[in-house]
Amino acid sequence: MSIHSVKQSQCHLAWDNSIAPVLRIQSGETVTFDCGDASNGQITPTSTVETIKSIVFSQFDQVNGPVFVEGAVPGDTLQVDVLRVEPASWGWTALISGFGLLADEFNEPALKIWELDTKGGFAYFDAAKTMRIPLRPFAGEMGVAPGKAGAFSTIPPYATGGNIDTKHLSAGSTLFLPVEVEGALFSIGDGHAAQGDGEVCGTAIETPMTVAVRLTVRKDRPYTKTPHFRTPKIGAAADQEYYCTTGVDADMREATRAAVRNMIAFLGAARGLSRVDAYMLCSIAGDLRLHEVVDMPNYVVGMMIPKSVLGPVENAHF
Amino acid sequence: MSIHSVKQSQCHLAWDNSIAPVLRIQSGETVTFDCGDASNGQITPTSTVETIKSIVFSQFDQVNGPVFVEGAVPGDTLQVDVLRVEPASWGWTALISGFGLLADEFNEPALKIWELDTKGGFAYFDAAKTMRIPLRPFAGEMGVAPGKAGAFSTIPPYATGGNIDTKHLSAGSTLFLPVEVEGALFSIGDGHAAQGDGEVCGTAIETPMTVAVRLTVRKDRPYTKTPHFRTPKIGAAADQEYYCTTGVDADMREATRAAVRNMIAFLGAARGLSRVDAYMLCSIAGDLRLHEVVDMPNYVVGMMIPKSVLGPVENAHF
Repeated sequence: MSIHSVKQSQCHLAWDNSIAPVLRIQSGETVTFDCGDASNGQITPTSTVETIKSIVFSQFDQVNGPVFVEGAVPGDTLQVDVLRVEPASWGWTALISGFGLLADEFNEPALKIWELDTKGGFAYFDAAKTMRIPLRPFAGEMGVAPGKAGAFSTIPPYATGGNIDTKHLSAGSTLFLPVEVEGALFSIGDGHAAQGDGEVCGTAIETPMTVAVRLTVRKDRPYTKTPHFRTPKIGAAADQEYYCTTGVDADMREATRAAVRNMIAFLGAARGLSRVDAYMLCSIAGDLRLHEVVDMPNYVVGMMIPKSVLGPVENAHF
Repeated sequence: MSIHSVKQSQCHLAWDNSIAPVLRIQSGETVTFDCGDASNGQITPTSTVETIKSIVFSQFDQVNGPVFVEGAVPGDTLQVDVLRVEPASWGWTALISGFGLLADEFNEPALKIWELDTKGGFAYFDAAKTMRIPLRPFAGEMGVAPGKAGAFSTIPPYATGGNIDTKHLSAGSTLFLPVEVEGALFSIGDGHAAQGDGEVCGTAIETPMTVAVRLTVRKDRPYTKTPHFRTPKIGAAADQEYYCTTGVDADMREATRAAVRNMIAFLGAARGLSRVDAYMLCSIAGDLRLHEVVDMPNYVVGMMIPKSVLGPVENAHF
């Protein structure tokens, strides 16, 4: 299988199906992306809070691509296997005016520059207090072009993915996205070295990154209407692996309802459960998490079922 | 330390500070409660869906108590150490008309009766499909009497706890509740053998249970305005232990904001973090989970920080 690459300069600032692909690949091939940080280079290791005061937010969240995957047509699913995510040796976290879950309660901009121990797999939040953060790098943005014509901001997430800011998509995970245009037109960006479910202050440990994904066209997954994903095994415990369906909506409760509805559809297709049985299974074994609550106007909520509960699932559904 | 007990018949159907205590204990003493299931005995192992059709919902979610803890006064925190939770050998899950996150999409009542392998620690969801649920029993209801006069339904959760339906409160966990009346007036009930974050269909694996808790008055925790809790270690990994603050509100987004706000206050008090640093820490290391989304009108959202990230925290804050 050939290896392809996309350069840092090959990026764009809108989800727009009229943007010409920078690369064409066969289904099943791997692409390596060299991605700048989410500020598009405006923040550097020597930046101070003054940088934040004059930052141009409209230049944020560029994504690299798009990549045209041969054979993908609307109605297919694009399988994105995350093979490798390598952050830089530095990162930043900021409070940006008007952005974040508590934006109305934090009026002053702020900036924290991090040194990342990528070999040790951690970063000190406060060395004196011995508070350190385990690194778990992932791409905050992974998406495909929308079927609808026009240029859509890369800040909010959509049913086709984009800025879903989902911490569970680290190396070893697999993301499924609904294809809406010929070739899928996949793009990626927004490196995060670590983040919690929600990304509540609006930023993670933002970092440039090199990321490699394998892109495969799937024609056997009719229920992927929003991003679905499988998590990697974390540690030794098999019950720490999940299958997750998401809901993406401008109303948090409706996003939650959609996540559950999508899991019910998945359980029906993958394990033959009745709608009632699937709904009950979600209640007793599925965890609702708020993956992203700041990329307005859309929230991303996940319904996560441990793989150990699902029992054997045919490969066609994974 | 003496052992006290509360009988199954010693229960009530409202949070009401005028209900006389069934027991008085010293701070630090342990009480064992014998609790019926959440249907108050209306559902039995031989029930069918016909039972659900004629069920009296106003009799649901009785709680056992109240227990008066000597020395507790408004402004204190009641520390509830969950020592033991033993479910019965059977349980039930139901769809009840008008109840549940997708109530409008599931109009027909349904009932599933479970056989619980309490020694093996699991229950078969579908033995033929080899789908089984790990049991992780906890009390869906734990709360104290409100300061406000009147009788408040035991169905919704409140800032003083109650039906918080939080799966993380299994044996080994510690719950902190704000005391609003003299003696705290603690009650408990609603045994769940297993449940996911959200309890989306409205019911868990509901079961009668015996539960033992140690109740301690804490006068050094001024920031417990809503339920806070520490989770037990799950498996071997230290990064699976969390400290959690919650938000309880009729608006899901406001509950989410309150959970984060409460964690910021906790991090300030427990680790001396500035508000900005605490907000950033929540974003990069704290997970937002929807603990309960069905006990209307109030949602319970949790902000969970791994204890491994917190670093050393003085006992006064745990």
